[in-house]
Amino acid sequence: MASISETPEPPYYAVIFSSISSELDEGYEQTAELMETLALEQSGYLGIESARTNKFGITVSYWESEEAIKNWKAQVDHAVAQRRGRQQWYQEYAVRVARVERSYTFEADA
Amino acid sequence: MASISETPEPPYYAVIFSSISSELDEGYEQTAELMETLALEQSGYLGIESARTNKFGITVSYWESEEAIKNWKAQVDHAVAQRRGRQQWYQEYAVRVARVERSYTFEADA
Repeated sequence: MASISETPEPPYYAVIFSSISSELDEGYEQTAELMETLALEQSGYLGIESARTNKFGITVSYWESEEAIKNWKAQVDHAVAQRRGRQQWYQEYAVRVARVERSYTFEADA
Repeated sequence: MASISETPEPPYYAVIFSSISSELDEGYEQTAELMETLALEQSGYLGIESARTNKFGITVSYWESEEAIKNWKAQVDHAVAQRRGRQQWYQEYAVRVARVERSYTFEADA
């Protein structure tokens, strides 16, 4: 997960998931892995990026369309419900769905 | 920085800055702090979130308008140029400007 996603030219969509985990390590890692696994299988998936400083985590996933996000969310919700309540993993979280309008990148010379 | 930004109802804007730092610790922390300091002073600033796993960092800042982002970027570029080249801090980065269209939050009972 520790790499920058190779996304196409905008427009496309981003889901910004910011969280404070209540069970350090276990909860965040489990959910981040679950979200990534389910994303990889999903049509319209473009990439995922994740980072965490102590209990604070940010996961950004990239998508071709809102439809793809909706399908992914349904799968994540279902899987989380099957395991255990999201409230046990997180003290707090925010999900923001955004339309990427422009982007630029930098890469150092090798 | 390790808290979830209290943003208003959408629409508003997000700048997603994903980076791989070449100088571990120093470079990323310095730039993250610089970006945050300059953001706080900026009209239209709504919040900033940052996390890092080893060399991989994500900083998401939130803004009322594209105009506010433009002003902030000009200040960051100027400040970075005055210090030292961005290429010394980063091996690679991507900046994505996105319009937040919907959001939802969860907070555990105290």
